[in-house]
Amino acid sequence: MHDISQYQDFFISYLKDQTISKDPKNLYEPIEYILKLGGKRMRPVLTLMTSEVFDTNFKLALPAAMAVEVFHNFSLVHDDIMDDAPLRRGKVTVHEKWNINTGILSGDAMLILAYQYFEQYEPVVFRDLAKLFSKTALEVCEGQQWDVDFEERKDVTVLEYLKMIEYKTAVLVAAAMKMGAIVAKTTEKEADLIYDFGLNLGLAFQLQDDYLDAFGDPETFGKQVGGDIMINKKTYLYLKALEFSTPEKIVLLEGLFSLQLPDNTEKIETVKAIFNESGASKATQEAIEMYTFRAFETLDKMEINAEKKNILRTFGENLMGRKV
Amino acid sequence: MHDISQYQDFFISYLKDQTISKDPKNLYEPIEYILKLGGKRMRPVLTLMTSEVFDTNFKLALPAAMAVEVFHNFSLVHDDIMDDAPLRRGKVTVHEKWNINTGILSGDAMLILAYQYFEQYEPVVFRDLAKLFSKTALEVCEGQQWDVDFEERKDVTVLEYLKMIEYKTAVLVAAAMKMGAIVAKTTEKEADLIYDFGLNLGLAFQLQDDYLDAFGDPETFGKQVGGDIMINKKTYLYLKALEFSTPEKIVLLEGLFSLQLPDNTEKIETVKAIFNESGASKATQEAIEMYTFRAFETLDKMEINAEKKNILRTFGENLMGRKV
Repeated sequence: MHDISQYQDFFISYLKDQTISKDPKNLYEPIEYILKLGGKRMRPVLTLMTSEVFDTNFKLALPAAMAVEVFHNFSLVHDDIMDDAPLRRGKVTVHEKWNINTGILSGDAMLILAYQYFEQYEPVVFRDLAKLFSKTALEVCEGQQWDVDFEERKDVTVLEYLKMIEYKTAVLVAAAMKMGAIVAKTTEKEADLIYDFGLNLGLAFQLQDDYLDAFGDPETFGKQVGGDIMINKKTYLYLKALEFSTPEKIVLLEGLFSLQLPDNTEKIETVKAIFNESGASKATQEAIEMYTFRAFETLDKMEINAEKKNILRTFGENLMGRKV
Repeated sequence: MHDISQYQDFFISYLKDQTISKDPKNLYEPIEYILKLGGKRMRPVLTLMTSEVFDTNFKLALPAAMAVEVFHNFSLVHDDIMDDAPLRRGKVTVHEKWNINTGILSGDAMLILAYQYFEQYEPVVFRDLAKLFSKTALEVCEGQQWDVDFEERKDVTVLEYLKMIEYKTAVLVAAAMKMGAIVAKTTEKEADLIYDFGLNLGLAFQLQDDYLDAFGDPETFGKQVGGDIMINKKTYLYLKALEFSTPEKIVLLEGLFSLQLPDNTEKIETVKAIFNESGASKATQEAIEMYTFRAFETLDKMEINAEKKNILRTFGENLMGRKV
């Protein structure tokens, strides 16, 4: 086994060796651009790490890891069009650098390219990977659609929100790990357990992202602190605050979440205060702990040795211990 | 073997039995809408027909045929966004009926759904189908990108144009047929020959579409006659006219193809006259005949019986004999 930064290096070096850009340039250059824009490469690292947890050299898992990363970036390109986002990882988005049509078509090509990386495996592994990939990719689309739908709805429940982030974010983390297990040809039972580990960790991760968006350190949090409040996003914090608040505070909170303000300083402070007073912040932290605990519980059921379990646990702890 | 209209009926009945619409409705309803909008279903019919040419019950080929049709409709949804098209088959396009974001996301889901139809086959067939599908789908994206690029270019060659229509249109016709061969588990040689048959027939079909766009019967041609001339599309007719014309006529033709007019009646007549005088019309008809002949030549190399060859030849003749 290697440590996370080593898997990152292995993956980045593999990525660099891929010849993506060919003719027509207007189709492939945007793909090369977004893929080489950086990022933590968390998902492909999970695929590599998981293959070694199941006693298979990470090199065998590199094409599957690449498929996961190409798919993730496909979803970023299309989501950025839908969200009209000007920036991604501090750089200009594909549809801004080129145009919307290029973003659509290059994104489409990326989704297909992701499938092609599975062709490097024998038929049964290919089928298992592609099947998991299709299921996951469709769930990510469904999650994105729920997310869009929720913007217009006033009656989103906490359960619906959890389903949305499960589909939009957690299933890809889970699938990235299960792909490492499939490449390693472990048992179905172990593969399903590592999927559950990834799913719960993915949920914890997304809830923490929600939490840090409001309460993170502006110095270290990558995005603008208070960004979700600014755009009236109905996160776990918000939905729990509605659940726990007095009628007066509910009216105030819903009122604030119907505004689009030029200066959001005061709105952010007021909303954060309601999140804290209502117990929503505490409930969110408890949910994060619960999902992290559930992930670790899954490890107990697995038949890998204690050292391997420890590596996965440490990865989870580091991921959840992030203050950024 | 059955006749074309029977394969159409079998396919349409299979399509109707598919439960596509589920939650989230805003993702799946547009998919159901476009899939049930009609059309000739030429590509899936080719898959079914080819499976029977290679002595396999068409029922086995229904999921592969469905994948081809879902992919074709995915490409229509995304192309219609890129072309800002209001209508498709006389009905309002997906992005007009819903919105651009829905068009993007529902299209993405369709591309994934297409792959899922291959899951009904055993691993080796699944792998062969998915591999051919990915290669084809990527070529279709490349063809679409060339098509977009050509709009801005003044130096498109006839060879480049042929490559573009090969990728944008012909490879899917070819792949639709080869999928029938893969499902039927015929030899690689036969599968490659039926691919070549489809490719040449696909090229002939698209060149005929170009021809009929200018010279078809307004009563029976599905689209507006002269539509390509109106939008200054650099088709085979146009490129050949530039090749064959006098310098004066080249200046006139290029001048006309730089205009966006409110009334195109006179422009269309003038351009059609140049197409005829220059010999471009004749050259296009000769190219259509040449590619149709090449398709039929491929049949001679195949090891299927004379009756099967006759069915494929008749299909080709009917397709190319269309006056619409």
